[in-house]
Amino acid sequence: MYNIDRLFEAVNEKGHVCVGLDTAADYVPPAERQKTACAADAVLAFNKTLIDATFDITACYKVQIACYEEMGISGLKAYAETLKYIREKGQLVIADIKRGDIADTAARYAKAHFEGDFQADFVTLSPYMGMDSIEPWLSWAGTKGKGAFVLVRTSNAGMRDFEYLELSQTAQAGAAGIPPKRLYNAVGDKLSLLADSHLGKYGYGAFGAVVGCTEREEAAEIRAKYSNLFFLIPGYGVQGGAAEDAALLLQNGNGGVVNASRSILTAWRAELDEARADNRLAAEAGRKAAISMRDAIRAAVKKQPKGDLYG
Amino acid sequence: MYNIDRLFEAVNEKGHVCVGLDTAADYVPPAERQKTACAADAVLAFNKTLIDATFDITACYKVQIACYEEMGISGLKAYAETLKYIREKGQLVIADIKRGDIADTAARYAKAHFEGDFQADFVTLSPYMGMDSIEPWLSWAGTKGKGAFVLVRTSNAGMRDFEYLELSQTAQAGAAGIPPKRLYNAVGDKLSLLADSHLGKYGYGAFGAVVGCTEREEAAEIRAKYSNLFFLIPGYGVQGGAAEDAALLLQNGNGGVVNASRSILTAWRAELDEARADNRLAAEAGRKAAISMRDAIRAAVKKQPKGDLYG
Repeated sequence: MYNIDRLFEAVNEKGHVCVGLDTAADYVPPAERQKTACAADAVLAFNKTLIDATFDITACYKVQIACYEEMGISGLKAYAETLKYIREKGQLVIADIKRGDIADTAARYAKAHFEGDFQADFVTLSPYMGMDSIEPWLSWAGTKGKGAFVLVRTSNAGMRDFEYLELSQTAQAGAAGIPPKRLYNAVGDKLSLLADSHLGKYGYGAFGAVVGCTEREEAAEIRAKYSNLFFLIPGYGVQGGAAEDAALLLQNGNGGVVNASRSILTAWRAELDEARADNRLAAEAGRKAAISMRDAIRAAVKKQPKGDLYG
Repeated sequence: MYNIDRLFEAVNEKGHVCVGLDTAADYVPPAERQKTACAADAVLAFNKTLIDATFDITACYKVQIACYEEMGISGLKAYAETLKYIREKGQLVIADIKRGDIADTAARYAKAHFEGDFQADFVTLSPYMGMDSIEPWLSWAGTKGKGAFVLVRTSNAGMRDFEYLELSQTAQAGAAGIPPKRLYNAVGDKLSLLADSHLGKYGYGAFGAVVGCTEREEAAEIRAKYSNLFFLIPGYGVQGGAAEDAALLLQNGNGGVVNASRSILTAWRAELDEARADNRLAAEAGRKAAISMRDAIRAAVKKQPKGDLYG
């Protein structure tokens, strides 16, 4: 069974929220930071409490490795422990690593992130170097059910620099024989072809796409065109995307998870005095934020055409 | 002083070779592997011996982090120790990490790889997400002289999937007001503009470009167009690029370093019985391979127009 099928089922059961553990040390309440020997320990303790408080209402977790690499070796130990904790709870975790390198190197990266200390269920990948930087990861879909989300159209302003560039009519033909219009279409078209070769039981390929919800324009078109791609959707909340924007990237009430990081991790700041906050209270605030996000997306989905298919 | 200036001077003094420490555990002679408690220790010991044997004839080192991530936490300790060893010898090191993520995350990655456990002199970056994934790294050029090489046209076959796609005439205008022809031109044009804002004393920007030497076509055009970008040139040797191909990407005898990994790391296999090989003999074989590569590139450069400017 592909992890993408498990993720589909988790969405049906628990909603579309992906909790992003981009846990900077200063997101942890000060009293808790003072208790630990190093910042990485504080981050790990915070993560565990938040995971305990949210796994029943969360489709999956996404762990941004940059926040841990920033702390060096001790940070990467906290990263490894965070992934392990999530997986031991039977929950799914996306390693947000955005790796992208040529064939031999890709195979090494895949080994690094699909087994051993840093084992995750999914990774994020960057497609710039081409499909030979993606395909070595795909063999892990067949053997271990692993998945990936490849950057297609991201949620940052810089998206317009390259992803959004228009291609010439002579650029190679896309999935349906139609030349891709923009760079992100060229990537999406190739992923959509790849998805058909590793299709899960709910109609989504083992490897999906990262599509941000900060740009409403073309969202419906992207969703319709890549109906066999499950989407990891960043850009919600602090980055400006709303539930209605995210809903445009879902289909039949499923087909995507919506990531939120800061709005959940730092929800405690709106409710609590710095001095009074601890991990337990911060996790409760995070849970409330995640529930209200889940419900907002569910409500937006129900307003969509076919929204009533959603259980 | 920018690190790119130090690299320019190292090339003048020692030639164009960048030794790629993509040290897979099975590149280490078996007798040495048996001496160490874990694969990562074997890789570190091998690296140190090879660095000792080559730093006087090597412009810089490039360390491929995937080979270390593959070994988990112990691998990343060996990675950190390898960088530290190179820097303690006063040599320059490129962290081949190909990171690329949005603004806040980019700033965290920069901190991870420009200071602390994983401090390097240069990094490699992937531009897919746009210039806001590159710019946060650039502030380190001003403060600490740090540098980066951004993927432009790589050496793998998959390069044709996206990097090589033709853009429409309406795609945004490039450096000289001319619309970029292909995706890699769009990236190169933006980097070339950026380079002018952080220009070192030899005319190269603090941030350069990765341009592979596996494709001879357009090499001269790329070199001429991006005269303010220093090139990190992969694809030499095992990947098929020859000294003449690399020379096309240099200018006035400088302006680039040419990476070789396997052909140097595993040179000992052509000379020695597995059973007889040790790190010292392997390092000597690697040194010979690096010298012959250095001399081949020098000879090819001298055959180029303006090659006689080369010291």
